[in-house]
Amino acid sequence: MPVYKAPIRDFQFVLREFLPLAANKDVAGFSDAMEMADPVLEAAASLCEDVLFPINQVGDKEGLKYSDGTVTTPTGFKEAYKAYCEGGWPSFTCDPAFGGQGLPECLNLPIMEMACSANLSFGLTPGLSHGAYNALFLHGSEEIQKRFMPKLVSGEWSGVMCLTEPQAGTDLGLVRTKAETVGDGSYKISGGKIFISSGEHDLTENILHLILARLPGAPKGTKGISLFLAPKFHVKEGGSLGERNSLRCEGIEHKMGLTASPTCVMHYDNAIGYLIGEPNKGMKAMFTMMNAARIYVGVQGLGLAEVAYQNALNYAKERLQSRALTGAKFPDKQADPIISHPDVRRMILTMRAFTEGARALAMLTAFNVDLSHRHTDPQVKQDADDFVQLMTPIVKAYLTDMGSAVANLAVQVYGGYGFIKDYGVEQYVRDARIAEIYEGTNGIQALDLTFRKLSFGSGRYLRSFFHPVDAFITEHKDNPAMAEFIKPLAKHVGYLQQASIFMATAGLKNPDDAAAGATEYLRMFSLVVFAWIWAKQAAIALKSHDSEPEFYDAKLATARFFFAKVLPGTTSLLQSITAGGKPVMNVAF
Amino acid sequence: MPVYKAPIRDFQFVLREFLPLAANKDVAGFSDAMEMADPVLEAAASLCEDVLFPINQVGDKEGLKYSDGTVTTPTGFKEAYKAYCEGGWPSFTCDPAFGGQGLPECLNLPIMEMACSANLSFGLTPGLSHGAYNALFLHGSEEIQKRFMPKLVSGEWSGVMCLTEPQAGTDLGLVRTKAETVGDGSYKISGGKIFISSGEHDLTENILHLILARLPGAPKGTKGISLFLAPKFHVKEGGSLGERNSLRCEGIEHKMGLTASPTCVMHYDNAIGYLIGEPNKGMKAMFTMMNAARIYVGVQGLGLAEVAYQNALNYAKERLQSRALTGAKFPDKQADPIISHPDVRRMILTMRAFTEGARALAMLTAFNVDLSHRHTDPQVKQDADDFVQLMTPIVKAYLTDMGSAVANLAVQVYGGYGFIKDYGVEQYVRDARIAEIYEGTNGIQALDLTFRKLSFGSGRYLRSFFHPVDAFITEHKDNPAMAEFIKPLAKHVGYLQQASIFMATAGLKNPDDAAAGATEYLRMFSLVVFAWIWAKQAAIALKSHDSEPEFYDAKLATARFFFAKVLPGTTSLLQSITAGGKPVMNVAF
Repeated sequence: MPVYKAPIRDFQFVLREFLPLAANKDVAGFSDAMEMADPVLEAAASLCEDVLFPINQVGDKEGLKYSDGTVTTPTGFKEAYKAYCEGGWPSFTCDPAFGGQGLPECLNLPIMEMACSANLSFGLTPGLSHGAYNALFLHGSEEIQKRFMPKLVSGEWSGVMCLTEPQAGTDLGLVRTKAETVGDGSYKISGGKIFISSGEHDLTENILHLILARLPGAPKGTKGISLFLAPKFHVKEGGSLGERNSLRCEGIEHKMGLTASPTCVMHYDNAIGYLIGEPNKGMKAMFTMMNAARIYVGVQGLGLAEVAYQNALNYAKERLQSRALTGAKFPDKQADPIISHPDVRRMILTMRAFTEGARALAMLTAFNVDLSHRHTDPQVKQDADDFVQLMTPIVKAYLTDMGSAVANLAVQVYGGYGFIKDYGVEQYVRDARIAEIYEGTNGIQALDLTFRKLSFGSGRYLRSFFHPVDAFITEHKDNPAMAEFIKPLAKHVGYLQQASIFMATAGLKNPDDAAAGATEYLRMFSLVVFAWIWAKQAAIALKSHDSEPEFYDAKLATARFFFAKVLPGTTSLLQSITAGGKPVMNVAF
Repeated sequence: MPVYKAPIRDFQFVLREFLPLAANKDVAGFSDAMEMADPVLEAAASLCEDVLFPINQVGDKEGLKYSDGTVTTPTGFKEAYKAYCEGGWPSFTCDPAFGGQGLPECLNLPIMEMACSANLSFGLTPGLSHGAYNALFLHGSEEIQKRFMPKLVSGEWSGVMCLTEPQAGTDLGLVRTKAETVGDGSYKISGGKIFISSGEHDLTENILHLILARLPGAPKGTKGISLFLAPKFHVKEGGSLGERNSLRCEGIEHKMGLTASPTCVMHYDNAIGYLIGEPNKGMKAMFTMMNAARIYVGVQGLGLAEVAYQNALNYAKERLQSRALTGAKFPDKQADPIISHPDVRRMILTMRAFTEGARALAMLTAFNVDLSHRHTDPQVKQDADDFVQLMTPIVKAYLTDMGSAVANLAVQVYGGYGFIKDYGVEQYVRDARIAEIYEGTNGIQALDLTFRKLSFGSGRYLRSFFHPVDAFITEHKDNPAMAEFIKPLAKHVGYLQQASIFMATAGLKNPDDAAAGATEYLRMFSLVVFAWIWAKQAAIALKSHDSEPEFYDAKLATARFFFAKVLPGTTSLLQSITAGGKPVMNVAF
């Protein structure tokens, strides 16, 4: 049976030492976050370890029951959702005006990570509700907000995103669902949607559907798409539930993983809905949510990697097979634990270098989301948002690619047992796989980085990374204890700059030359970002070392592993990138 | 629904142009193979496409039924097995003395690949029978051979390998199953085995269990293990079935994939068996089979990659999403097929560069197996065996790692549909995963390459690769048309030599320094082997080009893709390898 223990010490490290929270304690919510961090982390850990995690394998095995438009969640999910709401978790970062607690994203991120580690199928429903909250918060009219948001914030209702149609996945410009005005300010929505996560379930009394649809005479493509809200049950004045709206779940998909998360085929038959934001500006409204959603999907990769890593490490310490190459470590046992073997250690350290690096990066990105929303200085807000814009495709794609890779490493560490359902780690591989696809495939993330983020404002987004890195290198370049990190960091930053120049130049001349290397460029960028993150963590570890040697020695060892065994990946990627478009375009299919 | 069409043209290319069959036509069986190749490939293709493939998804969905010691295979499997035997496929490479057809492995390999593509769960049973055949052929007494082999060759009976026990997976020295002599030449075998593929099923009337067990007073570890044959039903003089032996399937595992292949928990309770080979030499006997089994497992990776590639390519040509970056390719359609997009082309070409390279390598290895068995010149036999020894861990590990990677790329090309069971490609990911683990984990393959193969005979095995590569480079170095392949090949061969010297030197000083880089070394070796394979294929394509321009243009384009986008991986790997053991050993767990 798999195990999960929330990595609280590492969350504390990032919150207290890695993020400049103290230096920004005047930002709204930050001093609360610092004060409340420990009890919040402990309460969330307890919910995730004791309530959500124990029903994760149950959910995978039982799956969902679909019958005549209704979806029944697996044993324990309803009770767990109740406990989740009673803990106040749905409202954690929401605006106090709607019953929220107003806490910052950088403290919410560990909670999200823990929920993803413990039970991703469960976590998707509140995760999507939070996306719906954001859409209504940013684009809903005052009336809509008043009517729909309080029960979304409390968790009594959930919210879902309804984008995809059979012919319109990556290409949302092909959306066909229609909306017509009724005349009383509401709209009739008709059409079919697929792949609607949590589109129907039995966890909440109402479900708010946020739907992309076209108004009559709307321009073709993405410029003619509007966003609507259609509730499963109508909501009367005062907030009580009215009649059922004419929308229906026609079935659920049978999937590789996340089998306890309903992926619904939805049909809207003149369903009554309300316009959110301006007509034909639905894509823009959707994208403000999408960035948050993409970071959340990256955290799914991280969360699954963390639980996979914990189990692989436990197993590697317990499983006895063969003797260490340099002689028996435990001569009294029948064999040595496999953690003695260098190749197993390589796998375990690959997992750890990823999870701890990803955690620091995701929390740093969330911290910048907070600054961009909460800081009072417009320049600080913009700089923070620039960093978030640049990191979003990296967090989404690299963290989910590596989430799958790390889950697969856990299976490899387990050997044959990894392939057997009872042991639980193969589920992480299956659950992790979709995160590389949804909320924009990782190929789309690479194109976003290459064509939108790279060139924006003559490199303004890029500078939000290169400037702090340069400053960090300058700060530490005369510290001999940091030389082992600073020298390779500077070298690989140089490679990344070469690659960036190639991509920017190639992209202008022939976009195929840039697009052909986009995935490798995103991977290379991610490795250099992680090198910076690990060098920063190493600098802290050197400084704080004597206060807790065991913890900081582990950080330093993991940083060294990353620099020795993972970071060298950039040099090969640089060659693949600069090969340009010909090797993929000069082929007839 | 997924599709599969046997890649007959590519098999023919390898058989007729890539392998030096014609130059060796005097070797027993080779001229038969050349003559019969086309009808054999067509007959096997028809069986795989029309009989095995249509029940692959059925098998995955239905799975197996276990009840009171019996295992029922899914709908259609019994009929398919009957058709398989009626086609004479079990006896294809077997010795005519036992009813076999005596055909070479290099022609059998395409058949194995097709069966793996079409239905791996099905293919495992005959695959394991062939392993049992090899064990009895090489190590069985004349009496045993006469009694058991003809029905194994005809497929009426099947055979299985019983190695693993709960405490003894990678480390077979920990095997505890016991065997005691009865006095009449037979033995009583008692103990439990796990992970026994096809240990029990309803496809054949008898199952021959080849079991590793210990005789009384046997030395500890692998030097005290003997190999026994225990049939499910006793076999009377004359070959008819007698009473049931005291062995029993106690249950089957619930697995991530290969759900139609029974993975059995077996219990032997004084089961009557016969010694195969010498007492305490069971590991040696097992290893003669294991090499063949490892090549076969590599082919599983290839077969799944091929069917995944075919489906991804079809989907990419049909699925319409977004416009090509350089302008609409099909302005009359609602969008362009996704094969227009560079990142999708990168994925498709990654898949093709692997499958076609792996096919050529696997068939070349099989051809050398044939030479090592069938050639009359002892030096040729030894050289061929050296090549097989060196390539076995590469074929096993690289082809299965990439089998998983390519199956995952197919899911990525499909996007959301890839995650849905109906579309069939996610099954390839699940089915492929175990091949990286069984028959020696890929980490074990890397150690085999590093510690056994690298140093053998002062580099004798290594020379079986480097000598032909050097000869190939010399042959083509003045051909300007080949310069684009020969120059990078020579450069990367140089890198591999650097890595090999590091590994050999490090391994002597401190084995941890070599073991820490073993997985990267195997990967790097594989890339350089593939570079050689692709350069050879390119040379043929240039020569034969005008006879079939479309086919050979595709070969050249794929070779160019491999050199531009895949081969550069070696430079990063070289850095990781030469980082040595410290980054993984200097960590406390």
